[in-house]
Amino acid sequence: MASKNKIYNIGIDVGGTKMTSVLTEGGKPITDFTLATPKDNLEHFIIMLKALVDPLLEMAKSDKAKIGTMGIGIPGVMDGTKERILKCPNLSILDGVYLPKILKENFGLLSVMDNDANCFIRAEATLGAGKKYKNVYGITIGTGIGGGWWINDDIYNGSHGGGAEPGHMVVDYKKPLDLEDAYHNLTSSSPAEVARRAYMGDVPAQRIFEELGALFGASLASIVNIIDPEIIIIGGGVVESSDLFLNAAQKTMKELIISPAAKNTKIVKAKLGQLAGAIGASLLK
Amino acid sequence: MASKNKIYNIGIDVGGTKMTSVLTEGGKPITDFTLATPKDNLEHFIIMLKALVDPLLEMAKSDKAKIGTMGIGIPGVMDGTKERILKCPNLSILDGVYLPKILKENFGLLSVMDNDANCFIRAEATLGAGKKYKNVYGITIGTGIGGGWWINDDIYNGSHGGGAEPGHMVVDYKKPLDLEDAYHNLTSSSPAEVARRAYMGDVPAQRIFEELGALFGASLASIVNIIDPEIIIIGGGVVESSDLFLNAAQKTMKELIISPAAKNTKIVKAKLGQLAGAIGASLLK
Repeated sequence: MASKNKIYNIGIDVGGTKMTSVLTEGGKPITDFTLATPKDNLEHFIIMLKALVDPLLEMAKSDKAKIGTMGIGIPGVMDGTKERILKCPNLSILDGVYLPKILKENFGLLSVMDNDANCFIRAEATLGAGKKYKNVYGITIGTGIGGGWWINDDIYNGSHGGGAEPGHMVVDYKKPLDLEDAYHNLTSSSPAEVARRAYMGDVPAQRIFEELGALFGASLASIVNIIDPEIIIIGGGVVESSDLFLNAAQKTMKELIISPAAKNTKIVKAKLGQLAGAIGASLLK
Repeated sequence: MASKNKIYNIGIDVGGTKMTSVLTEGGKPITDFTLATPKDNLEHFIIMLKALVDPLLEMAKSDKAKIGTMGIGIPGVMDGTKERILKCPNLSILDGVYLPKILKENFGLLSVMDNDANCFIRAEATLGAGKKYKNVYGITIGTGIGGGWWINDDIYNGSHGGGAEPGHMVVDYKKPLDLEDAYHNLTSSSPAEVARRAYMGDVPAQRIFEELGALFGASLASIVNIIDPEIIIIGGGVVESSDLFLNAAQKTMKELIISPAAKNTKIVKAKLGQLAGAIGASLLK
């Protein structure tokens, strides 16, 4: 018997397009795999999950490590106890599914679930751009817009598990239009394509990013005016084009923050890259 | 010597128009006074404060009670330690003032300060409409719009003392326009006058209140989508006209809340009436 057993954790990040698994030790990634997310039915989804997880289990076995927990991040809203997915807009096969129970049945491991943006911010706040801070707001801008709030060493969940959904802040009350809809409208739901054109010098595309900067800046100012975090971390696919809008966002945000003491709140980019969500899932308890 | 000394507290609620003092025991009001708020200079303001506080001190003396603390609620933004007022939009004589220090010098009592909306929600959450709940968001709509968030048995202050300013949520990012500006625009800064006309059957005035309902509903939905409280308490002068807009606000809010589990979050009216802010100030520690 070894005097010290290694403990590894498994994290899975389920996105609308791809899903990634990672094996971690103390939050550090050991190996990871990525597949396209099956959208046809739950059975197929579980088969693909096994394809992502089984090689991690074999590696843990060959390293003589035990698996602590298996965490999964989901792009949707769940119930207060995080046992059931209530609504998964970009992956409706998961609507109503008790996913941790299914994982436990299939893998025999302690299984926990959270929102994908919460997993992202858990990783970034503990190991990434927010590790020096105690009150960190994270926003992920990719296909959709998610968010998570890290305070007092944990994710803030709200009273009904419905907190930290910044994509659904109302940014135009007359229509009404929320942040995510405004983002989709501005980018015609193809932010990467608009960014490509902007980088090639296309002026209308650059203007779209300026307007996105104003939109994000106003939305983040609302967040600061309501919860006043120490720092805001921005992640998701759009971060790759951040030089097109981040200065404008920071400027607009500063103008619209009401508290003089909070005006210099910084927006910083995520540090952990593509694996942040999966690493955060592996940190779930 | 009595075996038990009575402890009274003093609370002062400073508004843009009126200021009120109250003497309390265990949060219960014993007596209270109200004066017009002096706006000309700080010296005059302090003289009027004395006029509000001295009779409370005499009453405490005749009751053989000690004064525990003297708390004051201010309609403005303060620094993180709540020692200095940074900005008091409707009462600029207080800009930059170290008010608790001045109170201590004038009355010799332990003096504490908070935002007036925080005092309101402290009273309502502990003794009023929120006393059964642990996670209570309060919004006050009067001359301006304030807010406070009561969670884990205390006011949430944010990292820079700049949290809970719902009046400064951006409700139209293109202009940009915040909730308080939209409210002033809609009511031409005279909500009581618009309410008077609406109650007399004036259709345009009733329409304004319907639009106010949509505006408040959208703004409160943003708050639920970000912090997901158990309940929302609405206070301030506009509560007296709540039958003109509260149903519309509740309906719009429900439509725009994204989490199915949070959709039934209720908006309830404050219970403690005009004295809530002063009572809350007397509860400050």
